[in-house]
Amino acid sequence: MTNVAIIGASGYVGGELLRLLLHHPHVRITAVTSEQSAGKPVHTLFPNLRGHDLFFEALNSAEVAARADVMFLALPHTKSAEPAGVFLNAGRKVIDLSADFRLKNRETYETWYKTVHPSPDLLATAVYGLPEQHREQIRAATLVASPGCYPTAAVLSLLPLATRGLLDGRIIVDAKSGISGAGRSPALPYHFPEANESLEAYQLGSHRHIPEIEQALGVAVIFTPHLVPMTRGIFSTAYAQLTKTLTTDELTALYRDFYKAEPFVRVLDVQQSPNPRHTRGSNFCDVSAFFDERSGMAILMAALDNLVKGAAGQAIQAFNLMQGLPETAGLDDTGLYP
Amino acid sequence: MTNVAIIGASGYVGGELLRLLLHHPHVRITAVTSEQSAGKPVHTLFPNLRGHDLFFEALNSAEVAARADVMFLALPHTKSAEPAGVFLNAGRKVIDLSADFRLKNRETYETWYKTVHPSPDLLATAVYGLPEQHREQIRAATLVASPGCYPTAAVLSLLPLATRGLLDGRIIVDAKSGISGAGRSPALPYHFPEANESLEAYQLGSHRHIPEIEQALGVAVIFTPHLVPMTRGIFSTAYAQLTKTLTTDELTALYRDFYKAEPFVRVLDVQQSPNPRHTRGSNFCDVSAFFDERSGMAILMAALDNLVKGAAGQAIQAFNLMQGLPETAGLDDTGLYP
Amino acid sequence: MTNVAIIGASGYVGGELLRLLLHHPHVRITAVTSEQSAGKPVHTLFPNLRGHDLFFEALNSAEVAARADVMFLALPHTKSAEPAGVFLNAGRKVIDLSADFRLKNRETYETWYKTVHPSPDLLATAVYGLPEQHREQIRAATLVASPGCYPTAAVLSLLPLATRGLLDGRIIVDAKSGISGAGRSPALPYHFPEANESLEAYQLGSHRHIPEIEQALGVAVIFTPHLVPMTRGIFSTAYAQLTKTLTTDELTALYRDFYKAEPFVRVLDVQQSPNPRHTRGSNFCDVSAFFDERSGMAILMAALDNLVKGAAGQAIQAFNLMQGLPETAGLDDTGLYP
Amino acid sequence: MTNVAIIGASGYVGGELLRLLLHHPHVRITAVTSEQSAGKPVHTLFPNLRGHDLFFEALNSAEVAARADVMFLALPHTKSAEPAGVFLNAGRKVIDLSADFRLKNRETYETWYKTVHPSPDLLATAVYGLPEQHREQIRAATLVASPGCYPTAAVLSLLPLATRGLLDGRIIVDAKSGISGAGRSPALPYHFPEANESLEAYQLGSHRHIPEIEQALGVAVIFTPHLVPMTRGIFSTAYAQLTKTLTTDELTALYRDFYKAEPFVRVLDVQQSPNPRHTRGSNFCDVSAFFDERSGMAILMAALDNLVKGAAGQAIQAFNLMQGLPETAGLDDTGLYP
Repeated sequence: MTNVAIIGASGYVGGELLRLLLHHPHVRITAVTSEQSAGKPVHTLFPNLRGHDLFFEALNSAEVAARADVMFLALPHTKSAEPAGVFLNAGRKVIDLSADFRLKNRETYETWYKTVHPSPDLLATAVYGLPEQHREQIRAATLVASPGCYPTAAVLSLLPLATRGLLDGRIIVDAKSGISGAGRSPALPYHFPEANESLEAYQLGSHRHIPEIEQALGVAVIFTPHLVPMTRGIFSTAYAQLTKTLTTDELTALYRDFYKAEPFVRVLDVQQSPNPRHTRGSNFCDVSAFFDERSGMAILMAALDNLVKGAAGQAIQAFNLMQGLPETAGLDDTGLYP
Repeated sequence: MTNVAIIGASGYVGGELLRLLLHHPHVRITAVTSEQSAGKPVHTLFPNLRGHDLFFEALNSAEVAARADVMFLALPHTKSAEPAGVFLNAGRKVIDLSADFRLKNRETYETWYKTVHPSPDLLATAVYGLPEQHREQIRAATLVASPGCYPTAAVLSLLPLATRGLLDGRIIVDAKSGISGAGRSPALPYHFPEANESLEAYQLGSHRHIPEIEQALGVAVIFTPHLVPMTRGIFSTAYAQLTKTLTTDELTALYRDFYKAEPFVRVLDVQQSPNPRHTRGSNFCDVSAFFDERSGMAILMAALDNLVKGAAGQAIQAFNLMQGLPETAGLDDTGLYP
Repeated sequence: MTNVAIIGASGYVGGELLRLLLHHPHVRITAVTSEQSAGKPVHTLFPNLRGHDLFFEALNSAEVAARADVMFLALPHTKSAEPAGVFLNAGRKVIDLSADFRLKNRETYETWYKTVHPSPDLLATAVYGLPEQHREQIRAATLVASPGCYPTAAVLSLLPLATRGLLDGRIIVDAKSGISGAGRSPALPYHFPEANESLEAYQLGSHRHIPEIEQALGVAVIFTPHLVPMTRGIFSTAYAQLTKTLTTDELTALYRDFYKAEPFVRVLDVQQSPNPRHTRGSNFCDVSAFFDERSGMAILMAALDNLVKGAAGQAIQAFNLMQGLPETAGLDDTGLYP
Repeated sequence: MTNVAIIGASGYVGGELLRLLLHHPHVRITAVTSEQSAGKPVHTLFPNLRGHDLFFEALNSAEVAARADVMFLALPHTKSAEPAGVFLNAGRKVIDLSADFRLKNRETYETWYKTVHPSPDLLATAVYGLPEQHREQIRAATLVASPGCYPTAAVLSLLPLATRGLLDGRIIVDAKSGISGAGRSPALPYHFPEANESLEAYQLGSHRHIPEIEQALGVAVIFTPHLVPMTRGIFSTAYAQLTKTLTTDELTALYRDFYKAEPFVRVLDVQQSPNPRHTRGSNFCDVSAFFDERSGMAILMAALDNLVKGAAGQAIQAFNLMQGLPETAGLDDTGLYP
């Protein structure tokens, strides 16, 4: 059993880490921190956890380091630097779900996040926590930067092409996200009467996941996120020019081969669309590839649960790798349908 | 490990039995039948199960009896009689999720279901599968009639009062159900553009769950079901005159005491409302009691997931009792929130 | 043409007053006030109004009085007293959509609203603005207290029985509301991921619409409001003991007769349920009556759009009466379906 | 007053034609046909129309021709040929909402619709009914082919660029539609529990609106439609390489100029996204343009109500032009928000 702490656990990602880690066969949760909710039982924020007698606590980093071996940080960006430093110095392992250690290039971070990087010295240590791309590095890592929800979907939909050198020039990623992706803080765009029967694009050309996708794939990206009236789920539709002409069958075969050993990527049949409904609550990412013969472009689709494979589940997948556990430990939820 | 069969597995309840039983630590699924879907992998109907290589089969009852020790029947009413008879004769145990064995009185069944009872001889054998009410009988049963979704919610919200003899005269149950309760067959009232932003009452005074609630509680019931735009979930609001005046605190204490050993009933704090959102995917039923001092009436509320505690989960809870397993085996899903 | 002002126009009710009054054939909007949105075009808050060049202004009551003949007040409770006093003294007419003048008894107001009444001297002047109950008084009124959304639904579902003296003892009203009824200010319960796939009761025994329903019907009321995942709409289910036994046909005939001249109440056929979906955007209230022969109780249902017949539309209906206009002027929208 | 007939009025488009034409100041509806619903009042299918005493009738084309001067055909494709021929021969005007007369090239139609064209002789007569593109031809037309919902959104988002010759090579259109676009016939993908919390692409590379968009814009198109959990609304996101570099301000100014006289196209401010919520129930199409300086590509967005500007409203706009009426007659609904 590994003692783990969840830092900044009062948001939806924190709740999902709790839900999953409470059933993880090799985990004991020894600290759950939240400044604003300190003293409350976790079920006051996450009513599905009623019956578990965990409480939020206000702990400083040293106190947490004394209690746990692995830390999940679910803090806003720029807030992970201090605790990450303390934990790493204390010989602990850190899985950071913020954006702070995802971009290898400090200037890129500072440009897109419009802030000074809080701990550039840790950038070389950090491993980007996408198991399908960096499995071996994650196994050896002490600091994992868990990917963003949009990048996970976009990158998994394109990784076979990028890896095989088939991407020709920039790609277009048109992504659609459920509203839990915006977090748990109420605001007008997420107010039910505003968000229901509603669909809009946002942050055109300026979303902070752009450099993350570009870094992972090594190509330039045009990225347009849209907010759709679902609670959970991301759907990513990518348009790519390839360096050679393929049929949809060939493209699908290539994806099947590339992902054949992956426990959480399911390549769908030809002409089947992924659907976040089919991954809700699970750590799966469903992927589908189509070659449009009229235009010669490939259309690459992925769907996942933004709070699981797009956040908490993926972090636990990295945790399993770091701890030498079965990669799927604690992640066998098949998801809820309908 | 017990070998189990799921008969008529192509509906939402069948899918939910599959989802839960696939993770049950003491179960091996040895037959999944469906006439219309025979030959298809189960994930073609239940895409969350992609990755499991189970197939629907068209099997007759003797073939099923040869494969399994316990049968879950998820068939339309009047269709359970034949297979139940065959299985029981073969020494198997049967958990029937249809209405056929829920009502002890054959005439009541025939009046409300407007059909001849298909096997009245089995009525004496059948045990009503509400563990909170009939735990010991279920342990010894060979044929369990698993309760309907509305009755589970309504009865659990009122059982402490009925058991303690506190109900004074008839009760009113105003219930609200998500649309998966209507099943998986498309029809105009469940067509998304019709069901979304929609709310209506149906089957006033004639819903077939009325005699079931009355039988369980021993009082006359006025029952009005409403269809609300949710996928899953039932909310039941009951209004009851009591034989004595209580405060809400006393009423809540009485409920807490009554349900103190129940693994799946959570009595909420005073002035907290249950919410099906908090039980989604789990086998919990959340209950809350309020005494309205102005009128002297009690308001009793319950929420649950109609496909889990209202169907598949409850059937598995009975299965666990029948097999001498821990009652919560395979039912530890905390549910998905948000 | 009448010059009208909308005071406190930045909420959903204000937006609905604008939508309807902009198409009213006998109205010119001469002032739209909002302190917090002063200077902004109305379409920044109500994007459906893009194309109209109206602006919010911060005006004091004297300035408004100089511009308009009739004022619609869409302010929080206790805030209507000052402007209402100024407008009435200036010889203007006032339609107040807050709760301040709805309850004739000052103590009742102070008990339920837990505040000192801001202008008890105006209570005798105010007319409760339910045209189906007080049409003639509204015609002559200078100050109309427009009813709340729940009371409109509940009272219209029961008014024929109350008026004919058929209600025997207290009634139970189980009501279900869409989320726009909670207003436009974001808060956690209305955050999309919380409100979607969600249903809960609130303010048990203490909702401020209870005394309003009791005053209108002259009987004691048990009232339980529920929040359901719709943007618009209220559904009210009332349970009443009658002083005599009726068939559903007789009850329906009685309702048809009672409402035969009403332009905005539609009595449905026997066994048809109202549905807020059928009234969305329109000023209609659909009503249906059922007599449960097993129990001898009547079940009375109503559905309406909480922002139209439950607020803005009803206020305009009163305005038409006060101004001697056709009662349906500006209210001929048939509503949007699906 | 013009006498108009609605042929095949039992679908959502038919209901929307009824809703709008019933309030049209220059229209008298003299025939509403439906084979399957003949004899029923229209409100049995469209409950928002309760109170209007119109009935569906089963009439042959000659009977309709005797009653009306202008016919709206809301029939499935290939079914419009016979009635259109009869009406035109009788000197009547026809607005066809099917796909039959949209494509000028018979072979293109036969390729994409996989059927023999039912009346190729009428293709030369038909005018594509997009007023923003073909206003003068529509004024003179006797047969108008009203555009599809997706093409209206996509074409209006790109028409300024196509007209000014700024499109460089093929374009990508990623479109998202609410579920009413699939019509009123229940089917599994539109069953509420399946469509809610769901999002998927469909008909990749093969949607029949592709040749329609290509014909209107004169460029090759990659088009991917997605189904999203809304009742109404289409959102179109187009990606285009331009023949020259522009700023977003310049692009927006170009759009403003191009659409400055259009009554139903609203060009939004820079960095504002359209949203179908803002057009619901109205005939507006909101458009927004963005130039992505990193990539040199333009992102062009449009939102509209698929049943109004995407179908019934646009047909009425064409009707107004054909009859010499004010173009906005009967189309002044501002839409419903929230």
